[in-house]
Amino acid sequence: MNSNTFQDQPGQKGSYKFGSLSHTDRNIRKQAIEHNIECIKIGRKLDSKALTVWVGDGSNFAGQSNFRHALERYLESMQEIYAAVPDDWRLFIEHKLFEPAFYSTVINDWGTSYYCATQLGDKAACLVDLGHHAPNVNIEQIVSRLIQFGKLGGFHFNDSKYGDDDLDAGSVKPFQLFLIFNELVDAEMSGIPEFRPAYMLDQSHNVTDPIESLVTSSVEVTRAYVQAILIDREKLGDAQAVNDPILAHRILKEAFTTDVSPILAAARERNGGAINPLRVYRISGYRAQKAKERPARAGVSAGII
Amino acid sequence: MNSNTFQDQPGQKGSYKFGSLSHTDRNIRKQAIEHNIECIKIGRKLDSKALTVWVGDGSNFAGQSNFRHALERYLESMQEIYAAVPDDWRLFIEHKLFEPAFYSTVINDWGTSYYCATQLGDKAACLVDLGHHAPNVNIEQIVSRLIQFGKLGGFHFNDSKYGDDDLDAGSVKPFQLFLIFNELVDAEMSGIPEFRPAYMLDQSHNVTDPIESLVTSSVEVTRAYVQAILIDREKLGDAQAVNDPILAHRILKEAFTTDVSPILAAARERNGGAINPLRVYRISGYRAQKAKERPARAGVSAGII
Amino acid sequence: MNSNTFQDQPGQKGSYKFGSLSHTDRNIRKQAIEHNIECIKIGRKLDSKALTVWVGDGSNFAGQSNFRHALERYLESMQEIYAAVPDDWRLFIEHKLFEPAFYSTVINDWGTSYYCATQLGDKAACLVDLGHHAPNVNIEQIVSRLIQFGKLGGFHFNDSKYGDDDLDAGSVKPFQLFLIFNELVDAEMSGIPEFRPAYMLDQSHNVTDPIESLVTSSVEVTRAYVQAILIDREKLGDAQAVNDPILAHRILKEAFTTDVSPILAAARERNGGAINPLRVYRISGYRAQKAKERPARAGVSAGII
Amino acid sequence: MNSNTFQDQPGQKGSYKFGSLSHTDRNIRKQAIEHNIECIKIGRKLDSKALTVWVGDGSNFAGQSNFRHALERYLESMQEIYAAVPDDWRLFIEHKLFEPAFYSTVINDWGTSYYCATQLGDKAACLVDLGHHAPNVNIEQIVSRLIQFGKLGGFHFNDSKYGDDDLDAGSVKPFQLFLIFNELVDAEMSGIPEFRPAYMLDQSHNVTDPIESLVTSSVEVTRAYVQAILIDREKLGDAQAVNDPILAHRILKEAFTTDVSPILAAARERNGGAINPLRVYRISGYRAQKAKERPARAGVSAGII
Repeated sequence: MNSNTFQDQPGQKGSYKFGSLSHTDRNIRKQAIEHNIECIKIGRKLDSKALTVWVGDGSNFAGQSNFRHALERYLESMQEIYAAVPDDWRLFIEHKLFEPAFYSTVINDWGTSYYCATQLGDKAACLVDLGHHAPNVNIEQIVSRLIQFGKLGGFHFNDSKYGDDDLDAGSVKPFQLFLIFNELVDAEMSGIPEFRPAYMLDQSHNVTDPIESLVTSSVEVTRAYVQAILIDREKLGDAQAVNDPILAHRILKEAFTTDVSPILAAARERNGGAINPLRVYRISGYRAQKAKERPARAGVSAGII
Repeated sequence: MNSNTFQDQPGQKGSYKFGSLSHTDRNIRKQAIEHNIECIKIGRKLDSKALTVWVGDGSNFAGQSNFRHALERYLESMQEIYAAVPDDWRLFIEHKLFEPAFYSTVINDWGTSYYCATQLGDKAACLVDLGHHAPNVNIEQIVSRLIQFGKLGGFHFNDSKYGDDDLDAGSVKPFQLFLIFNELVDAEMSGIPEFRPAYMLDQSHNVTDPIESLVTSSVEVTRAYVQAILIDREKLGDAQAVNDPILAHRILKEAFTTDVSPILAAARERNGGAINPLRVYRISGYRAQKAKERPARAGVSAGII
Repeated sequence: MNSNTFQDQPGQKGSYKFGSLSHTDRNIRKQAIEHNIECIKIGRKLDSKALTVWVGDGSNFAGQSNFRHALERYLESMQEIYAAVPDDWRLFIEHKLFEPAFYSTVINDWGTSYYCATQLGDKAACLVDLGHHAPNVNIEQIVSRLIQFGKLGGFHFNDSKYGDDDLDAGSVKPFQLFLIFNELVDAEMSGIPEFRPAYMLDQSHNVTDPIESLVTSSVEVTRAYVQAILIDREKLGDAQAVNDPILAHRILKEAFTTDVSPILAAARERNGGAINPLRVYRISGYRAQKAKERPARAGVSAGII
Repeated sequence: MNSNTFQDQPGQKGSYKFGSLSHTDRNIRKQAIEHNIECIKIGRKLDSKALTVWVGDGSNFAGQSNFRHALERYLESMQEIYAAVPDDWRLFIEHKLFEPAFYSTVINDWGTSYYCATQLGDKAACLVDLGHHAPNVNIEQIVSRLIQFGKLGGFHFNDSKYGDDDLDAGSVKPFQLFLIFNELVDAEMSGIPEFRPAYMLDQSHNVTDPIESLVTSSVEVTRAYVQAILIDREKLGDAQAVNDPILAHRILKEAFTTDVSPILAAARERNGGAINPLRVYRISGYRAQKAKERPARAGVSAGII
């Protein structure tokens, strides 16, 4: 269940133009809180077990907002939402460096997200969207930090080269995706307590068929996971212990360069899925059938792979 | 008092090539811990009241280091140092995104620094070097966060365009310097408890006379401070309360565009200093005298301003 | 006159989803070319003297587009447009690093823009939007390069912290704006041939009254220009000649820290404008009158400055 | 043959502290020109066929240098060097965004490098060091541009996450390395005239044995090359022609995820090389023998892979 209070909601009194959960106006904060509580109610009916809160709150001009007061108001609002979160649910906080606010955002980075999660309590944790970070930042290390501090809630998988590009997972930095799964597999095998991240694909496309992108991304995420399992962790630990960077790196790379495509296909087949999901999807005529129901979009090709 | 355990120290047994406080080898960690405790001893004699710990620990290759274990070892070492820090001292943790390690650093950002400071205790706080962040990051907001969370230890002032450039304070982004002081003055006026940051200039030059750079930087830091005091905080608060970004921003800009050079000069003069410190320094012949004592450096000009 | 072929145009046959002037389909390229030629016709009626071409063409996935062929097609299309540009007009090429394409853009940076301008001919030049560059890039130097190579067409002024943020000019990096005008004034005073850049404000807001933002930006652009005129260029040249960076930088900073607000206000007053344009605009009731004509936008305040 | 005029050269009269080929002082420029001409003389004896010129020239402070005049002086110096370059040699210009200069560099990006190469003549071309670009920049596209414009001279292969990190090739962004080779193979197969780039590894290490890093990097470069050859270019062209991004990207990815390690090993074996070069090198005892001749460096491990 995702709440999204950024968009103005027609028919409602208050606008989120100047913020939602951190708005200066108590009435608008109240409206945003109630929106989230409503989401929880709907989620209960759907047997959902988590609420992700991302807010577009922030500022476009230095001076527009008092950083400290904005975060205080956000936390106060979140405490009300937290109180409404069922005990067997989790509350995910999603940070983002910029956009739609272009000078500052209220939940700007993992540090702020982590602080808020600790202030709220055990049900609260941090959600990592791979495209919400500053340039050059080491995201697999942020994942490791949140695991270590007991606050990794989950992921929005996608990929990006510049900002929140929301491209298909693994399409720009496949090695980074593998290194993130290296952290996850390491945590699983190390028996880190309370380690149970939620996985979501969060992509937004206009040049591909969204279903084809979801299919492709799920294959890439699985590829990274299986490659991470292939890492010889005992040898890796030994190389780390004696400070042999070349050997340690090579152990990772051997897993990364292993072609796991055949085993992924075999696993899909055993689970009743398609050996070549994209080809099957294209042959299935699903898109052609939908195209009949809806006006065709110009420029989309449909070759058989 | 600054400890710096990055450089190999001739005559010592262990090398810091693969880390110091987070090294895999307990003996090298021990050596680095003792080096820091030695620094505290010297500091006591000098009546110092704080120890800044920056480590060059990190990795150059994915796989070289286990992020989690490295931070565990760092924290274990820091706890021993912390125990040796006198009760009226403070222990500053300095984070840095990269360099000398080029894949990951152990204290990579303010989030990790903040976590470590909370684990250690009340004497520990975070030190912000303006050049140690990822591109595009909002540093004044990080300063605000650390103030709010009670963990702002102090600053290494300098300026940068690309990385840890260590240029003169205010020479690249003077508006950013002003916005940082806006946070500091706001904290002071708001009576934030335990707010007492330490201020240092941390610059490294090869194209200027270091004394001239220090003189210039201290003027720029004072300029930003005085301009931040000029902000009409009541009007600013009102504009923020009614979400008037143009007005709020203009209130900041009016302070920033005020030419405080004359009042800075008057203040220096009243305190027995120079109205034009750079001119006085150049006329003083201090450099020429030192040049006699040491071999002249080619290419350095010495015009009178 | 601006042509913009990114958006799908209802009622037209071809979609620009996969490009316009560089599209693989000759028919769609033709449509985009004709759209530009139509713009020129309209511009002639309006006595316009320049056409700015920005294209959203690019790719979201490695492999989607052949970089070389895409640029060849773009150039071929532009040659047709160029042929239709009247001899007393200029054709501006606008580059942009990313967005809406998130893996590559066809006119990705000033280097590509410059190459295309030289291929097209003397009427073609490069347009610099301050928010269309990679992080950390020295934009004033790019301006200098284009001046030196005879291809600076003009500007889209705005400001940004992260990407193409389109914030008010001078609101994030006022010193950068000043340094850009330093290059422009230097070029003017040096009598660079063919130096006649076109100036535009290109901002996009949702948290301010657009007219207030335009007013504020025009004041900031004028401020940077007047401050750049104040630079003592003879002294600056002398300091550069003897490699005295501290002195050279201080000469710039003295101009930048001079408060030119009073003289800007006096100049406006002499030209029949407002001493305090924002205050006059707010008192004028223009916005209130328009608010009667259009439904009020929630959350917009209207305090008197 | 590489000339490097950044370091002060003991025993010489002029210092390169404020520049070399672009220095304000004609005598120092002359010295730097002669240094390059001397390099050509030595290169002739060694049967070298190219000279790479990288200069550390630039500025640390806005105002320190006049961008235009500095580039004019650089070009004037380069013309003298160019005249001394034998007709069957090539002259490579290497750009770099920052470092050692932290405000501006004279040859700042590929655009400036390209301009200078065209001004000098046919023997001049651009050299791409993978770590010398702004964050987020699409380097494979820059390679494509230089190929298209007839000015790709060659490469300094290495890898980087932050700046000029000089890490082992393919260790941070292996997919980027593959995409660069995709451009090179595409150019080769397309019969682009004058396409004959020079390949160099340019790495700088302190945590690995440099020979092991060179061995590893050469394997990674070969891997990227062979994977790029595997791309089904006919199918790729077809997918591009009909704007099928998912299929086009998948064609690249199928080549990238193919495990070419066995065929690389077989090729090495056929050429008289080692199947596992790192293992052979470690077993060979070469390092141990050199360690006898030179004092051991602490902390370097030597496990057998």
